[in-house]
Amino acid sequence: MINAMINTLSLQDTAELIREALSSRRFIVMICMCEAQYIGRARSFLEKGERLIVIKEDTSFLIHRPTELEPVNWQPPPNHISISLGENCVILTVRRVRKPERVVVKIYSFKGFFSDKLSDNGSFHMHLSEKEISEILRKHPELIEDGFRIVSTEFREKAGIIDVLGVDAKGRRTIVEIKKDKAGKDAVKQVLRYVREAGTGVRAILLSPNITPEAEKMLRKNGLEFKKISMLELSRIITYEEHSESSMSRFLRGE
Amino acid sequence: MINAMINTLSLQDTAELIREALSSRRFIVMICMCEAQYIGRARSFLEKGERLIVIKEDTSFLIHRPTELEPVNWQPPPNHISISLGENCVILTVRRVRKPERVVVKIYSFKGFFSDKLSDNGSFHMHLSEKEISEILRKHPELIEDGFRIVSTEFREKAGIIDVLGVDAKGRRTIVEIKKDKAGKDAVKQVLRYVREAGTGVRAILLSPNITPEAEKMLRKNGLEFKKISMLELSRIITYEEHSESSMSRFLRGE
Repeated sequence: MINAMINTLSLQDTAELIREALSSRRFIVMICMCEAQYIGRARSFLEKGERLIVIKEDTSFLIHRPTELEPVNWQPPPNHISISLGENCVILTVRRVRKPERVVVKIYSFKGFFSDKLSDNGSFHMHLSEKEISEILRKHPELIEDGFRIVSTEFREKAGIIDVLGVDAKGRRTIVEIKKDKAGKDAVKQVLRYVREAGTGVRAILLSPNITPEAEKMLRKNGLEFKKISMLELSRIITYEEHSESSMSRFLRGE
Repeated sequence: MINAMINTLSLQDTAELIREALSSRRFIVMICMCEAQYIGRARSFLEKGERLIVIKEDTSFLIHRPTELEPVNWQPPPNHISISLGENCVILTVRRVRKPERVVVKIYSFKGFFSDKLSDNGSFHMHLSEKEISEILRKHPELIEDGFRIVSTEFREKAGIIDVLGVDAKGRRTIVEIKKDKAGKDAVKQVLRYVREAGTGVRAILLSPNITPEAEKMLRKNGLEFKKISMLELSRIITYEEHSESSMSRFLRGE
């Protein structure tokens, strides 16, 4: 439901409205005048102002100011969320279930309120090229395996171009073949050609979002290995890195 | 303004409503049935579903699904945002101004719409203890200086406990004193005691969010250095890291 008259309701009625939306696990959007205190790994206080508060169906919690991409306060799910009445305000307490962290928000008035179950079964498809994946792995060889060191990417051999050539934690030479789509028998055959050319004692890992049952059987039979990768997580890694880098560079400039 | 009747408007009128809100740089919140395509460092497609779309006053852009803390699509400001009419949908095109990245959203129907200027002048105060800051620096010595290596934290000397003891890129022993609040003359005196005890050839850096003019004068006179730190950026670094780590660990589990 959307409530255009939210600003005419008493705080008590508003609290009741939020409590009801929370108990039926609806998606809640509030545009309101609020202040927020965070106590956890650090402590913070956000003075009064108009902001967007979002409580998702899984209790993910976000407070957004009128500008800036990042939320000013947030808590990952699961949270335990409770409502009470304070002096001239509704008090929203958002406690993380598994960590000693909480945000306490005092809401003084409302400009907008929405709560409803959202229907969203759409899939999210991420496309990264094999070259883009190999660039991410070059920065994060630990994603292949702990202790993995990359020696070369796009290494030319007679049998073709090897995506990643490296050394594992035990010092063994390792070939990594990346497939951005479900890997089939052709991919396994390709890896086998590389391994045969490279000689004995070489490990080979096929890295892809998925593999067909026949390809996996063929792979195991030949002593090769399969490692699943998630395109969405890969894309998140690069995006969060861009954010962290920009935070760090701002930090370094003392901003 | 909040529009409770948004679902009764024609798509043409809705497009006009959004265009008007964009041109007056209002904070826009839409709960709607949409699909989204992203083309940039990677390519992604999000199938149809009900989501929250937020366009901030500085053109920060976010699409949130009903669950999960992170947005599924987002673009940092500045963006150039335009509206057009498609077949049975409103098309929102969000182009980053300085990078070849864009999100194209097709909106088929609306459940909620809000647009207004938000008034938010509240300050955000972040409190981290000196020990917490020193923990962050231990993980990110580059925040002190490029090429900096930390040898020890909370190092006991006769003159007191040195927060961070390290070696700079040129191999010089360096003392780092952290102050979470504005540094005054007392902080400078403390660093001077450490330096005198440590002997010649030792660098000393006072790290804090701010410094009084007298303290800075005293510091320069004695050949010490000052480096500004931002509590907000520090807290963002630790929080984004928690996210990246969890993304990575999910990735490693192949999820």
